[in-house]
Parts: sequence; structure tokens; C-alpha cells
Amino acid sequence: MLRTKTFNSLFRPTLLRGLATLSVPETQKGVIFYEHNGTLEYKDLPVPVPKPNEILVNVKYSGVCHTDLHAWKGDWPIPPKLPLIGGHEGAGVVVAKGSNVTNFEIGDYAGIKWINSSCMSCEFCENSFESNCPRADMSGYTHDGTFQQYATADAVQAAKIPPGTDLAGISPILCAGVTVYKALKTAELRAGQWVAISGAGGGLGSLAVQYANAMGYRVLGIDAGQKEQFARDMGCEEFVDFQTTPNLVEEIITKTLGGPHGVINVSVSDKAISQSTQFVRPTGKVVLVGLPPSAVCHSDVLSHVIKSIQIRGSYVGNRADTREAIDFFTRGLVKSPIKVVGLSELAKVYQLMEENKILGRYVVDTSK
Amino acid sequence: MLRTKTFNSLFRPTLLRGLATLSVPETQKGVIFYEHNGTLEYKDLPVPVPKPNEILVNVKYSGVCHTDLHAWKGDWPIPPKLPLIGGHEGAGVVVAKGSNVTNFEIGDYAGIKWINSSCMSCEFCENSFESNCPRADMSGYTHDGTFQQYATADAVQAAKIPPGTDLAGISPILCAGVTVYKALKTAELRAGQWVAISGAGGGLGSLAVQYANAMGYRVLGIDAGQKEQFARDMGCEEFVDFQTTPNLVEEIITKTLGGPHGVINVSVSDKAISQSTQFVRPTGKVVLVGLPPSAVCHSDVLSHVIKSIQIRGSYVGNRADTREAIDFFTRGLVKSPIKVVGLSELAKVYQLMEENKILGRYVVDTSK
Amino acid sequence: MLRTKTFNSLFRPTLLRGLATLSVPETQKGVIFYEHNGTLEYKDLPVPVPKPNEILVNVKYSGVCHTDLHAWKGDWPIPPKLPLIGGHEGAGVVVAKGSNVTNFEIGDYAGIKWINSSCMSCEFCENSFESNCPRADMSGYTHDGTFQQYATADAVQAAKIPPGTDLAGISPILCAGVTVYKALKTAELRAGQWVAISGAGGGLGSLAVQYANAMGYRVLGIDAGQKEQFARDMGCEEFVDFQTTPNLVEEIITKTLGGPHGVINVSVSDKAISQSTQFVRPTGKVVLVGLPPSAVCHSDVLSHVIKSIQIRGSYVGNRADTREAIDFFTRGLVKSPIKVVGLSELAKVYQLMEENKILGRYVVDTSK
Amino acid sequence: MLRTKTFNSLFRPTLLRGLATLSVPETQKGVIFYEHNGTLEYKDLPVPVPKPNEILVNVKYSGVCHTDLHAWKGDWPIPPKLPLIGGHEGAGVVVAKGSNVTNFEIGDYAGIKWINSSCMSCEFCENSFESNCPRADMSGYTHDGTFQQYATADAVQAAKIPPGTDLAGISPILCAGVTVYKALKTAELRAGQWVAISGAGGGLGSLAVQYANAMGYRVLGIDAGQKEQFARDMGCEEFVDFQTTPNLVEEIITKTLGGPHGVINVSVSDKAISQSTQFVRPTGKVVLVGLPPSAVCHSDVLSHVIKSIQIRGSYVGNRADTREAIDFFTRGLVKSPIKVVGLSELAKVYQLMEENKILGRYVVDTSK
Repeated sequence: MLRTKTFNSLFRPTLLRGLATLSVPETQKGVIFYEHNGTLEYKDLPVPVPKPNEILVNVKYSGVCHTDLHAWKGDWPIPPKLPLIGGHEGAGVVVAKGSNVTNFEIGDYAGIKWINSSCMSCEFCENSFESNCPRADMSGYTHDGTFQQYATADAVQAAKIPPGTDLAGISPILCAGVTVYKALKTAELRAGQWVAISGAGGGLGSLAVQYANAMGYRVLGIDAGQKEQFARDMGCEEFVDFQTTPNLVEEIITKTLGGPHGVINVSVSDKAISQSTQFVRPTGKVVLVGLPPSAVCHSDVLSHVIKSIQIRGSYVGNRADTREAIDFFTRGLVKSPIKVVGLSELAKVYQLMEENKILGRYVVDTSK
Repeated sequence: MLRTKTFNSLFRPTLLRGLATLSVPETQKGVIFYEHNGTLEYKDLPVPVPKPNEILVNVKYSGVCHTDLHAWKGDWPIPPKLPLIGGHEGAGVVVAKGSNVTNFEIGDYAGIKWINSSCMSCEFCENSFESNCPRADMSGYTHDGTFQQYATADAVQAAKIPPGTDLAGISPILCAGVTVYKALKTAELRAGQWVAISGAGGGLGSLAVQYANAMGYRVLGIDAGQKEQFARDMGCEEFVDFQTTPNLVEEIITKTLGGPHGVINVSVSDKAISQSTQFVRPTGKVVLVGLPPSAVCHSDVLSHVIKSIQIRGSYVGNRADTREAIDFFTRGLVKSPIKVVGLSELAKVYQLMEENKILGRYVVDTSK
Repeated sequence: MLRTKTFNSLFRPTLLRGLATLSVPETQKGVIFYEHNGTLEYKDLPVPVPKPNEILVNVKYSGVCHTDLHAWKGDWPIPPKLPLIGGHEGAGVVVAKGSNVTNFEIGDYAGIKWINSSCMSCEFCENSFESNCPRADMSGYTHDGTFQQYATADAVQAAKIPPGTDLAGISPILCAGVTVYKALKTAELRAGQWVAISGAGGGLGSLAVQYANAMGYRVLGIDAGQKEQFARDMGCEEFVDFQTTPNLVEEIITKTLGGPHGVINVSVSDKAISQSTQFVRPTGKVVLVGLPPSAVCHSDVLSHVIKSIQIRGSYVGNRADTREAIDFFTRGLVKSPIKVVGLSELAKVYQLMEENKILGRYVVDTSK
Repeated sequence: MLRTKTFNSLFRPTLLRGLATLSVPETQKGVIFYEHNGTLEYKDLPVPVPKPNEILVNVKYSGVCHTDLHAWKGDWPIPPKLPLIGGHEGAGVVVAKGSNVTNFEIGDYAGIKWINSSCMSCEFCENSFESNCPRADMSGYTHDGTFQQYATADAVQAAKIPPGTDLAGISPILCAGVTVYKALKTAELRAGQWVAISGAGGGLGSLAVQYANAMGYRVLGIDAGQKEQFARDMGCEEFVDFQTTPNLVEEIITKTLGGPHGVINVSVSDKAISQSTQFVRPTGKVVLVGLPPSAVCHSDVLSHVIKSIQIRGSYVGNRADTREAIDFFTRGLVKSPIKVVGLSELAKVYQLMEENKILGRYVVDTSK
């Protein structure tokens, strides 16, 4: 609406004038779909033009998240835009910026994350809960995302990435990393306390285990089978195999000397969530973090009250969470286990995701 | 076990020596039952003897709480002692004290509340969560309570009541008042924010409304029919009749300009609790506070996460909560709507409670 | 720099097109000075042009604050811009807005406060500490302020004022009110706790007393002479006259039953601040809030540690504090004692301020 | 007073009956002084008898703290008891207990710390601030301490030490360790934030560095000369030599990328404290933790307010802090650099302390 022809044509030359070395093409490669479950088309697309408050990022790598699958399938009650270019874990280089942008320079590294912009003036934004802004714009959902070579984001919400950072490695941090880090912050634990992480051997879980260690917590991982070794390698001091344990609740309480002070429910099964309200320590916090389309959290009121537990929802991180989560990564305290493929192979990645065949995180290289 | 004959006989004379004006009889009147749902016998009972850390209180008045009914019926998974003298809202006068007691003098007013004693050295007690102490002793449940003329309590857990206080009026504050005040504290609101109180026209609810006002919150009451006027008189700025509203969730969100920041679920119906997770403001807190034997709290995970809400269990208050709740009462900011009857009529009160015919709070006078 | 001629000339017509009824003149009346302690000239000045992220406010009323005097005199180590139009408590009507502004409509009421804009992307802004943003722009200091009929502010930082609000009355809330409200929040007290307010009978102090009452605190005022009655009328439950008390520290400790849990040092004398560290309750918080050019806070380390007190600096409020402080005012819980004079008389107000002859708050009417 | 002959003689046999293997002698060795700066006499002393709420600990090792020197010299405004047996870092074995004690068994390891007992019923105790209890009894100050082979402590305040712990190594944790750990908690930092520790190469400082690391903080140490290497070995990521730096404030701000979020002032010089208010990051916290008899903390009010910093006093830890500090030690995350000598040599240790010749911590072996 604001991007009228006149405005843009006035705006474009200004940008180009300042961009001697960073030329921005008219078209690019990207993956788009026109209807839910429709073909994921890898094709030539126009390069978007940043608004006065936006930066244009040449996305080098983008992580692929379960949310991208939900958006494509139309699983959630809030409908995404259509047609849609998905993706919200994009890391790249700033190649242009709007007239109002003061916090990025051309050539800086930048990350595009789930919250693409927010209003900055509602009660949620005012209190740094911009993820809860009713007018938030979401990358790869209500705003075209990072499964393209050039994408836009509000400069205030875009993530700063230090020069020299491994852009492929950091891309999953922009959503997966920030999300589990935020969940751990939401649990409000103290160094030395126990946290249980369900799905500790998976993509999100293994990041959670590492962040928890960097924060000084003692970690009990919950997962099954051969994931145990991986979970332990990531930093689980204790581990419970939910498939073989005779009594999950009791085993966890015993191993954490009274129950974990916090639980991060990366796993989104109803049963796992309900169990977590049973094994959490009195006065402890159960954190819900995944976004399953239809799961329900059940909790026995009598026990909930007598144990004085809390069930806290944790959505994606805000700007501060993002900066902090990136800082742990760039300091080398958290590694992201990724597998890089070309952007043109995105449809295959979606298929693997649907078949639940993914260990770790896929990252697409937009140049291929 | 510690109350051996030798110890007690040595101990008794010491007490009596210092008690010229406050004589303690050998027997007293009280109400006892020997099995669940058994006869509530009003009869002569021996006066208990305080342990070194205990005070002996001549209970003048005791409130009657729903928990007393649950104890008598054996509704809860944790069994009470049998035979049992119920009651945990007793206000009276200290008439004797153990050798270790330094914080009460003979003649002081004292209150006996749900938490009769706790270990003071577990991780919960250390952090002022003594209600969550695994070794807590409960008045009228695991420790004979206040439905007798003389009752004992750990001096550290007993409540200090300022001289001159109306002992009948304050008795329900010791449990009902403290409990709703603690629930409000658990919601961690700021002055000026909205709190919704379900059951606002009932005994607990009307106390909650008054405490909320004294704390500077804006109150929306939820109840039905003729209770509206009472709820408004107690301090509800807005009111929703759950029986006549076409859409409870929408009406509450509209009247609180976006949903209440906190909800105190005095009502314990599954439906009311689930609805409160829907109308609570994003980032808001739903507090569970009642102790229904079999209710379950249901929450939609997707919405719980995206709205970043919290469901917090709030059990009874600790010593600090008790002192504060009493302070609001003695400053005249909270009134307790009571009906006084003789202790000998306790069985009738239980019957009214079972029939759900009680408005406000019954208080028994132990002298009758 | 960004306000090039080309940009502005393109921009102006757009604004005017949408502003049939709200015409914006080319020139206006305002008060400007060209050097520290120089003449305060009331004269014709050009109307400023909003940047894409700014609103243009037709200021109806502006409070006059001690900070304005400091700016004019050049008292502080951080130099203001010169020439300067002062003022940072302006209330008025939005008459134009930049292309990026989405949170204000033409005709809305708006307030311009001390923080005119901030970067929104540093670690302070990210955590809602925008007052501490190193790139914050200050109204009436580094950005021309509200002692003119038309002033600009970043739309995100401008305050929303509900329709129908008394614009003269609310103007001092935008700085004085927000500042004392923020100081009270910084003390992190609970309803029912004691707060001492030095200078309780002055302009800032009397606002602090009212906010403290609305937040459920018990207030002890400190001031002298005939200000006692005014302070008590505003809501002081206790009062100490610092000129006549034989022992200020002891009297305050006695009247607050052990010392106030928090102290708001509106008074900025070194002695008053040091005394507050003595009478504050153990574990209590002393809040520093004024901006005296050369005062020093002294605290005895031994006592500071053994009493475990905290001395907290509280600067101006952020966006959320502003919204909340305004809400208390519009709900009628806080009144601002103002005296309205014409903008053309500003120099006289400065003189009265220098002579310490002001009770309450002066507000200038920009139409006179 | 309570320990009348009759009571004790009744009490003693009971104890002995249950103590087949742990015999308690009538006399023991200890160090006592009768007046300030008087001779420190190593001699035979009667073994104290525990009150109903106390345990009797056979102290094996006791750390020697600067506070012991202050007590002996009478440096502080609050006078200690005289004659006095000092010491408040005692680790040993429970050999007897009062009738009311339920949380210790004969044979358990226990620690005696600065807070020997507190009232448990004042507003401070109720909120877990028992160190601030006006009736707190202090080991080696108002209650005979741990420079003797047998000492008493309130069972609720005594520290639990896990079986198998190195009793010499843990003794300094009971005061020095708990104190710096509490100071770090008082700073309320998040993992990943910067903390500066003055005196990082000293006894307290090196413990602080280790705790800070275990809590996930980034540590900048401040000290001089050859202490740099030791400080770095303990875990300082950055270091500033206060003797050789051209500009301490600037160097610290640069190395911590904007100033540390928290500062632990183990050093108690006025200058070091004042500097810490200058280099601390805006919104950061300066923690005072030592107990110098006459130091004063100076802070520029203007900067204090504009930077919104806080100066927080942190006294010794409470029961929870103690349990947590011990847990970090027993998990091997913190080592205490000690030097063990016989109790009979205590006077020499005091002399070394007076001459400021101590690196690390001296621990006395009560058997020698």
C-alpha cells in the first residue's frame, strides 16, 4: 500500500547510488507456493523492495523449520498469505536499506527471523513482548520469507550477526535456537538447578541441551533409543529413555533428586506434556514451546495447586533473546548440527519432514 | 513420641507457674469424628499439651472451610489422621507455650492456620515455600485443629494477631483471606491492571475482590444472578453474569479492554477454568486456587504458546502472606462477611455446606 | 540530514492532501534561546516538518520542568543543542504524520515527552530501557521541544492521550507524573508496604504521594511547615517535618513501624539522600530520581551491607510507564496541581523557578 | 538462661544414651579471648550443651575470616560477647542434638556458619532474609564459635554437608563461599552477561570468579601484579591491572563491551567502590559485600540516575544460599585454595592477617 510505484521508483535509484559494490538484481531464485499443499515452485521471482524502515538482505542460507511445513499445509487457525515464499531462519548480507534505517550499514551481516516486524507501540511491544504484538508480521507466513535470495525485514527486528560468523551454522539459531533459549529463560531457573528436556536428541532438543549447559543448569534428557548417546554428548548429565523406562515419572524424580525445577517440552505429545506436570518439582515450571495444531495440555487441578506448579507458554524470542542466543553461538558455546542442501531441493526436505525422517536441522543454500 | 509422661509432667508445672491468671483446664469441649462421614461428636476432650516449640491457644472462634468437609468425607488422595478434630481458621489467646518459644507471650492473640508446622530446613522452607514442605503438618487434617477450645500450633507458624482485633471477624482471614491474597500475589500483577475473579459473589470471591481493590487492581467479577450487586458492592468495577451472557469470553475481553492480566479461579468447574485460559490477556496469568478432588485443567497448547500465558497453581499462603493478609484486615481494608453459630452446631454447618447453601462464611464460637 | 528539501517538498503536499480540516501553517509562535542564559525570545518560528517516522503535534499546553531551567543554564555535563526550543511536557493534537507512522491518526491527542526518539535496536531499547539508549533524542534538549505551537516526535515514543482528556492537566503527567511513577515502580514495593516521599508537599512530591496511594502503598511524607496539610490532603498517612523534628531518622522509623520499605528522594539535597539510607528499612530500596548537577550520594558501606539496602537510580519512564501513568490520571486517581499562563510569559516562569518560588507546576498555553 | 542445671542434667543422659559410639567429653581445646586485642588463649574449655533446637558439632576444621579479626579487635559498632570464642566457618560431625531437632542425625556432617540462629518469625525471617533478623545470633560474635572442638548451632540454620565431603576444603565455603555466591545472586545477572570482580586474585575474589563461571557469567577480574595469572587460572576471561592501567574505567568498559552488567566489590577501598559506579554498564548493579569498619560509598547522583544503576548491599547468605553454595563445591565446580594449620596456631594466623600477608584462606585443624 505504501509501496506505490512513484515512491519506489524514487527510492530505488537512491539505494543503487549508495551501492557501488553491492548490486541488487531485478530478479532472483526462490521457492513459492500458491495454495496449501500446492507445488513448491523453485523459480525466478522479483526482488522485493525495502520500505523506509526495512533492510533488504541477500539471504545466503536459511534453516528449514517445522513451522514452514505447517504454513504450507495450512494447519493453523491463523491463515498465512498466499501465494507464499516461506522461511524464517535466513542469514545473509544487507544490500539495501530504507531511508529511516540507522542501525544497519550496507555490507553488514543480518538475520531474518519469525517476527519480521511489529508495531512497537502496543502494550506488548512496549514491554518487549513484541512476539505478542497483535500487528506482528511473520516471515514466511504473513510476509514473504527467506526461501529466496533476497528478502526484506524491519531493520529494528532484523538480527545483527557479527562479521565472520558462519552463516550456514547460525541460520537455525535464528528460530530454533532463539526459541529454545527463550523457553529456558521462561522457566526462570537458577544456575545449579535441574531442567528436563523432552526430545533431547532431536534438532530443537539438542540445542536446548547446549543452551541449558551454557546457562549453568543441570540437564536431564528424555528421548529414546540411539538418541541417548547424542543427547549425552550434547551435555545431558542424566538421561531417561521413555520407551524402556518402567516408570518415567519416578525415574525422572529420582535422577533429579526430587524432580526437575523446569521442564522444556520440545516434544508436543499430549502424554509427554501431561507427564511433565507430574514429574516437575513442586514450585517448578513446565514450559510449553512447540506449536502442534491440536494438542491439549491436561493438568490435575488438585496436584497443580498443592504442588504450586506453573505451566508457562513460551513463544518465539524477542530482539533481546535473539541477540543473546546469537551471542552464545558466536562464543562457541552452542553448535548447530546442520545438513546443507540447495534451495532448489526444498520440496524434498519438506517431504522428509513430513515423514519424520529428519535428525538435526536442514539448511538451504540459496545459491543452489 | 516426644510427649512422654515424664517430659510433660515436668513441663506442665512450669507453665502453670507462669500462668497465674490464665488457668488451663484438663478437659474442654470439641468436635471429633472417628471415621470418614462418621458422626461429628461434640463432647469433652482432653486439652492438648504443647511441645517445646508450640503454643497452646484458647481458640475463641474458628471459621469453617470447604476443606473441613473434604477432610471429613475423605475426598483427597492424602489421608488425614483419624480420629480427627477439624478446623484450621482459629483465632484466640495464647495460654501456654513450650520452652523454646520466644515469639509469643502468654495473653497474646494468635491464629492457627492450615500449615500448623513445617520442617524449616528443606529447600521449600528455606525459600519461604513452607506450604510445599513435604513434612508440613496441617491443622484439622494431620494435626488436631481448631474445632476445640484449646489447640496447639508451632509458634513459628502460628499467626500474630494484633491486640484489639475482632477475633470472630479475623478467623476466616486465616485461611480464606490468606488463600485469595496469596493467589493475587501469585498472579504478579501491577496496580492498574485488570484481574477477573470467578465466583466474585461467594465467600472466597468477595474477599478476593476486596484484596484486589486494596492492591490497586481493577476488578471484573464473574458470578450469576443476584450476586452481582454484592460483588459490585465489594468493589467490582465490571461484572459478567455467566448465566446470561451470550458470550462470556468476548464480553470479558471487551470489558477489560483486551482481557484481564490475571484471573483468580475461585470457582473450580472445569469449564470455568478452561474458559479463563481463553479470555486471559496475552502474557497474562491464570491462577488455580481451589482444591476440587477431581477437576482437570485443559488448555489448548497452540493458543497457550502463541498467547504466552501461564497457568499458576497457588496453594495456601506462607507466614509472610498471612501477616500481610491480616494487616489488610486490621487496617479495615477488607471485611469478612461472617455468620457466627455455636461450635455445638458444627454438624449443621457441614450439612449446609454439602447442600451448597452457604453464602459468606460460617464461624463457630467455641464457648457455645 | 534526512530532511532534504526534495524529500520535504514531496512529503508536504501528501500531508496536506489528507488534512482538509487540520491545516498546518508555515510559521508559528515559540520561545527560543541562542546561548546559555541568553534571552528567551518569544517569536515567529518555522513549523517543523515530520520525518517518515514522526508525527507533528499542535501543542496546546506544555508543562515547565526544572530540567528546562538546567538546559537553558547549561548546568549538565551533556550539552544540549543550540539554539534551543525547550519543553518536554507537551499535550496536543496530531496534525500531520510521516509515511511510516501507523499508530496515530490525524486528529488524535498526543503527548511529547522527554524521550523524543530512541534507536529501538540497542540492548537498552530491546529490553524496554529506551531512556538509557545511547542514541536517545531528548525533547527540549537535543530535539526542539514543546515551547512552540507545533513540535515533532517519533510516533513510537509519543504518548497516546485518550480523547476527551484535559490537555492542560495532563501535560505535567508527561514528565513529572511519569518520572515519579517510574521511581515508585523502581522501588518494587508491594501493596501495604510503606514508602517515604521527601518533598511530599512539592510539585513532584504531591504527584508521587497520589500515585503511591493508587498503588496501595502507605505513604509517609517528608516536608516542612505549611506544606504538611497539603501533603496530608494528597494522601500522606504519616508526616514528618524535617525542620522541627528532634530526630528525623528515629521519627520516620517509628512512624513506619521499622522504616519505610522504599524511599523516593524527590528532594535532591545531599543530606536528605544520606539520611534516607539510614532510615530505610533493612532490605529496603532508596530511589534517586532528581537530576541535581552536582549532588553526591553517600552511604556507609558497613550499614549498607548489613542492612542489605539498595540505592537505585530511576530516570524518566519508558513508553509503558508513560501509558500507565496517563491511565492513572485519566481514571481520576491522580490530579495535577497546575497554574496556566501564556507561552509568552515563559521567561517569568523561569525566573520564579530560579528563585524557588514555585508551588505545584506551571503550564504554558501556547495560544497566548 | 534456658540452660538451667536441672534442664541440662536431665537432658544430658538422654543424649548419651543414644550415643554409644560418639562419646562427648566434658572438656575440649579451644581458643578464647577475654577483652578486645587481648591474648588469644589456646586452652581447655567446657564442652557446650545444645538447647532443644540445637545440634552439637564436633568441629574438625574451621576457616579463619577477616571478620574474626574485626571481632577480636572490636572494630564494629555492634559489640560482640566477651569473653569470646571466635570462628564461623566450622565443618564437622553432629555428636548430639536437642529434643526438638528433626533434621539432623547423630553422625551427620554439619557446618556452622555466621548466622547461628534467627527468630524465624519476624518479617525478615518469614521472607528468607534471616541474615537481617534483628534477633539473629552470630557464630564467633554473639555466640561462641568454631575455634573450639565442640560448638553448638540452631539445627535449622546449621548447614548440611553431604557425606564424604572434604571437611577442610569446605570450611571456607561456609562463609567466604556463601558470601560471594550470595553477592553474585544479589547482582541478578543472566548467563552470558559480564561481571567484574575486584580483588579477583584474593581469597574471596578467587571464589567469586569460580562461582561466576559456574553460573555462566563472563568474568573480568581486577587485581594487580602477579595475581593476574592466578585470577585467569580461576576463570577470568579478561583482566585489568589496577596498578598499571592508564585508565581503569575506560579499560574495563572497553573489555566488557560497554561495562560489566554487575560488579562484585570484594575490595573495600572507597576509591575502588566509587570507580565501580563509573564503569558499571547503564542499568547495571554494583554490589557491596565486604564489611570495612569505616568505608563510605560515594556516587554521583546525576550519573546514578541517568545511567539508572543500582548499588546493592549483600550480607551473608541465608539457608538456601548456603545449600546452593555447598552444592557447587561438592559438584567440583568450585575449589577453595586453603592452607591448614593447627588451632593452637590461630594467634599467628591473626597476625598474618593484620599484616595483610595472606593469600587464599587459612583453615585450622582443631585436633592440633
